[in-house]
Amino acid sequence: MKNIKIGLIGLGRIGLIHFNNLKYQIPYAEVVMVADPRHKEQFKGVVVGTAEELINHPEIDAVVICSPTNTHADYIDLCAAARKDIFCEKPHDLSLERVITTLETVKKAGVKLMLGFNRRFDANFKKIHELVNLRKIGEPTILKITSRDPGPPPLSYLKSSGGLFMDMSIHDFDMARFIMGKEVEKVYATAAVFTSDEVAEAGDVDTAVINLTFMDGSMAVIDNSRKASYGYDQRLEIFGSNGMAQADNNKHDSHLLVDQEGSHGALPLDFFMDRYEASYRLEMMAFIEALLKGEGLPVDGHDGLEAMLIAIAAKVSVDEKRPVLLKEIRNTIRIKAL
Amino acid sequence: MKNIKIGLIGLGRIGLIHFNNLKYQIPYAEVVMVADPRHKEQFKGVVVGTAEELINHPEIDAVVICSPTNTHADYIDLCAAARKDIFCEKPHDLSLERVITTLETVKKAGVKLMLGFNRRFDANFKKIHELVNLRKIGEPTILKITSRDPGPPPLSYLKSSGGLFMDMSIHDFDMARFIMGKEVEKVYATAAVFTSDEVAEAGDVDTAVINLTFMDGSMAVIDNSRKASYGYDQRLEIFGSNGMAQADNNKHDSHLLVDQEGSHGALPLDFFMDRYEASYRLEMMAFIEALLKGEGLPVDGHDGLEAMLIAIAAKVSVDEKRPVLLKEIRNTIRIKAL
Amino acid sequence: MKNIKIGLIGLGRIGLIHFNNLKYQIPYAEVVMVADPRHKEQFKGVVVGTAEELINHPEIDAVVICSPTNTHADYIDLCAAARKDIFCEKPHDLSLERVITTLETVKKAGVKLMLGFNRRFDANFKKIHELVNLRKIGEPTILKITSRDPGPPPLSYLKSSGGLFMDMSIHDFDMARFIMGKEVEKVYATAAVFTSDEVAEAGDVDTAVINLTFMDGSMAVIDNSRKASYGYDQRLEIFGSNGMAQADNNKHDSHLLVDQEGSHGALPLDFFMDRYEASYRLEMMAFIEALLKGEGLPVDGHDGLEAMLIAIAAKVSVDEKRPVLLKEIRNTIRIKAL
Amino acid sequence: MKNIKIGLIGLGRIGLIHFNNLKYQIPYAEVVMVADPRHKEQFKGVVVGTAEELINHPEIDAVVICSPTNTHADYIDLCAAARKDIFCEKPHDLSLERVITTLETVKKAGVKLMLGFNRRFDANFKKIHELVNLRKIGEPTILKITSRDPGPPPLSYLKSSGGLFMDMSIHDFDMARFIMGKEVEKVYATAAVFTSDEVAEAGDVDTAVINLTFMDGSMAVIDNSRKASYGYDQRLEIFGSNGMAQADNNKHDSHLLVDQEGSHGALPLDFFMDRYEASYRLEMMAFIEALLKGEGLPVDGHDGLEAMLIAIAAKVSVDEKRPVLLKEIRNTIRIKAL
Repeated sequence: MKNIKIGLIGLGRIGLIHFNNLKYQIPYAEVVMVADPRHKEQFKGVVVGTAEELINHPEIDAVVICSPTNTHADYIDLCAAARKDIFCEKPHDLSLERVITTLETVKKAGVKLMLGFNRRFDANFKKIHELVNLRKIGEPTILKITSRDPGPPPLSYLKSSGGLFMDMSIHDFDMARFIMGKEVEKVYATAAVFTSDEVAEAGDVDTAVINLTFMDGSMAVIDNSRKASYGYDQRLEIFGSNGMAQADNNKHDSHLLVDQEGSHGALPLDFFMDRYEASYRLEMMAFIEALLKGEGLPVDGHDGLEAMLIAIAAKVSVDEKRPVLLKEIRNTIRIKAL
Repeated sequence: MKNIKIGLIGLGRIGLIHFNNLKYQIPYAEVVMVADPRHKEQFKGVVVGTAEELINHPEIDAVVICSPTNTHADYIDLCAAARKDIFCEKPHDLSLERVITTLETVKKAGVKLMLGFNRRFDANFKKIHELVNLRKIGEPTILKITSRDPGPPPLSYLKSSGGLFMDMSIHDFDMARFIMGKEVEKVYATAAVFTSDEVAEAGDVDTAVINLTFMDGSMAVIDNSRKASYGYDQRLEIFGSNGMAQADNNKHDSHLLVDQEGSHGALPLDFFMDRYEASYRLEMMAFIEALLKGEGLPVDGHDGLEAMLIAIAAKVSVDEKRPVLLKEIRNTIRIKAL
Repeated sequence: MKNIKIGLIGLGRIGLIHFNNLKYQIPYAEVVMVADPRHKEQFKGVVVGTAEELINHPEIDAVVICSPTNTHADYIDLCAAARKDIFCEKPHDLSLERVITTLETVKKAGVKLMLGFNRRFDANFKKIHELVNLRKIGEPTILKITSRDPGPPPLSYLKSSGGLFMDMSIHDFDMARFIMGKEVEKVYATAAVFTSDEVAEAGDVDTAVINLTFMDGSMAVIDNSRKASYGYDQRLEIFGSNGMAQADNNKHDSHLLVDQEGSHGALPLDFFMDRYEASYRLEMMAFIEALLKGEGLPVDGHDGLEAMLIAIAAKVSVDEKRPVLLKEIRNTIRIKAL
Repeated sequence: MKNIKIGLIGLGRIGLIHFNNLKYQIPYAEVVMVADPRHKEQFKGVVVGTAEELINHPEIDAVVICSPTNTHADYIDLCAAARKDIFCEKPHDLSLERVITTLETVKKAGVKLMLGFNRRFDANFKKIHELVNLRKIGEPTILKITSRDPGPPPLSYLKSSGGLFMDMSIHDFDMARFIMGKEVEKVYATAAVFTSDEVAEAGDVDTAVINLTFMDGSMAVIDNSRKASYGYDQRLEIFGSNGMAQADNNKHDSHLLVDQEGSHGALPLDFFMDRYEASYRLEMMAFIEALLKGEGLPVDGHDGLEAMLIAIAAKVSVDEKRPVLLKEIRNTIRIKAL
């Protein structure tokens, strides 16, 4: 097998994770060039260029986009024009219209686009997905996702994040579709600010409960908080006609101390860098393997779009204090051949 | 201390539990008379009479009402007239108007009325209540209650049950108020029939997700199913500014078998008779003790009314596909001095 | 079915448990007379007599012996003479010779003798026994029993207890035989005093690890402590050719509090009165049922003897710092037709 | 800080783990040369040489020895002569005499020698060690280690392994010393062959229970099996005057499936390559850091010797069916200035 030659744009927190995985952990991947204004000429032995040089580099097969959100859509368009396959970190773009146009562009160009919903590759959630697919719980009827961050991001981040639903819950919306294997019909959300004045200042919320109703009447409930004092909390439970499956949170270790106060166990892993370390690697491996084998991608632009529609519906639901049908959101935009 | 002399009406499933607890397990309680059309003259050494004889028996201090729901309100009125304290199984009555009149009657008569929300006395939920009160999780913001029965009741029961929200979820509505220590402002519910045609035939639902929004913006989510294939499922989780507390389900035993397929543990306890065996005893003890000490009851008529209002709002929410404010329900009825 | 008429000797802690179970919880059992010097004429509506009156009471079918250990053997002999079936609390007697003679007497008289190894009726251990019998773990090769008390008994008790192995570990020796379904060949024990000077003063030990080697080379390890600071600890694990089974300890409740320090769960149940409440009831039910059906007893005098032989071997092992064969102990006594 | 320049001998299973960690994961380490007869000239961009060339390479600071056991001692001697610090995989050597001479040589040469007891760096066991050191359980009195492999190695391996105690249990002997923080006085072991004829053919055992008595009378019990049908099992529990601490096994994921049969969780991780992946990395990091800072090593030659003495005592105990004092083993050898 020949290697997949990669160009990687953006060496921030997530970009570095992907870089290290591509360079040291994934066979058949080779990082040919990186682009990041913070680095010149060389980064860990890899040539540094501009994003445009990188996208148009003749040896590069695929581009991994980890730059700020507001650049994603433009780079996708450039990649499509250069006939490069694309891995793009979420969110795709904060504008639904813009997302639609990139999807059209990508489709016309015949290039592949994978969205960075890495949690699908987490051992726990992958196992639940597998159990559901094997019909171990029968027909799924109630899904419950708990997704809580250890602390709110800084005000600067909040202001450009697109808000809780678009920035944080969007992972859970994708997870809901992934695990249930069904499409969402209706969204109802309640939300509040409980953690910090900065969140209110950014016009955002930090605590939310979101109900999804699927086409067949089955239901999902997602609860989000920007601040779980005890750390990162990522769990889910799915209930069906023949049983239930749960994925518990991951902890630092498995110790249990029992003393006169009771039993005491470890804290959860701190944040996504620890919790999803393996899932980032497996996600990128899946991308590389799909390219190598010429197969379909495990998460694509359509998945990104659907999660985004749910996020928008949740926002409308909170603003208008009512359940919102996904087709209301769809109707507001020109969705062509997707 | 002198004994509390009890008359007990109704020796069905729950009535028998209360009878055995009062007779064999609770000091200072004495069952003087029982009333049940299925028994004549004597039941386990206790005199059998009619409900009216029992309520007006001069030696009886308090009446425990476990007869069919449609008799509750009338017996409460008779007890009030006879100046007897009352323990009444839930639901109080299916008519909100009728519930209100009994509460007024009881208040005027100056007798005590305790509602059978036994789950408040369950070791797990009591502990969570205690942790919340001790501010161990800080300010509570998200409550999640899972409450699933092992199988739907027969059609005959369903038809006169008042529906899922009034019959089953009502325990969870009380639990939500008990644990959060706050009052509900708004209810949104989605529901479906997934388990049996009989449920649909009875005009009822068997699966529901109910969102409660409290006065301060905090939230609760209740998920109910009439049929958990694996048995009775009673759990909750409460999240707050400083932590989280969970109450797990109770199992037959603590075994873990580990073989080539993985690890395997016990099933949950079968149904409420097993799971809440101790809570029924502790509930009745609390009733007897409150009477002995002349203290306030741990669950009273007001608690019954509030849970009922939430149940009605949930029904309206499903019917009208919208969030319903509790005050909408309150406004539909004449609520006087309660 | 006619009732089994019971006489009960000794209304101490354990005697009371058996009394309440026989009187209120077990159908087909009827307590006709009790004997206890602390009570005169009547106890909870039951006639009080002397032990001798009770044993020779013509209506009594079976005698439950809960008096001090040093009276057990004499009462067993009297019961045998009076042709009464016997339930005797452990230990049977501290003298091996005396145990042997009662077993011979009982055998000759053709009466039944059940020993109070109540833990066999605990839901957890019964389940493990069942899993082993169903060959769920294949052939058992390593058994590990943890058995720790919450605190040492008073000096007065220690002095007449027969020592840690005979008083406390004896339950674990019975459990080892029960779960493994094999006989012990060899015992090696190490022990120490770690908890209190009183234990040393009584010439006893409070902490021990006891190795049992079974006839087929399989092994058991028992660890005992008189003082687990966190409460009563009763667990086991059995490993075999096809898997492993564990029974965890029982806790006050199932709560889990998660805060910035980690997760925190409940303490174990305080002591045997709480932990084995149900097993005492089920044990006595099994005794009554075996008598009613004329069937063999689930735990008999032979089981008592075997556990005692192991206890003696453990003591010799500690004293002589060497492994001790059970047949060495057997050879020291005249064991006839048992 | 300047890099530590490493030569690595032996690229088998463990050698590769160390190689990848040193090359890709550990800052300040640089692999300058490797030696392995299976590779010529270059291995993943690193020069290949002979062991002798490598040990005497002027740029190399430290040598990591992962070659077959029977070469360890000779390479250690050569490293000492060349004044290179040493990381040596366990076992050090199968001959106690030879181990002693290398320790003397190393000491005289003033070089550092770290033994590969990687489990000390496992998150679970490290946490238990920390809790014990913080006196969270008071004074430790009973330690229980469970250590079971998923399946016996091939006959060829067994024959040159040194036997169960020297090959497998030796990790547990080190763990016992590490966790208890005390020295062993006496060993008693029972063992058997339960898994395969090959084990017997190799003159080895596959199942063992080993009791350690420490100088202060506290106790440890280790149970080993070469074949746990359910996978790799690595747990421990330590009991002390003020509490207990447990480290549970690590599993593939945290899922729980609950169906009509009960609850079902994941299998443990397959074997040491998965379970101890992080501990190998952290172990090597600790080695590099100690060299960089000129500090003492976390596990040294003395630790290797003590574990070996326990292994030998266990073997003698099984052969002679008696407890064996460690000083008996010490007395059989010339132990000088160690």
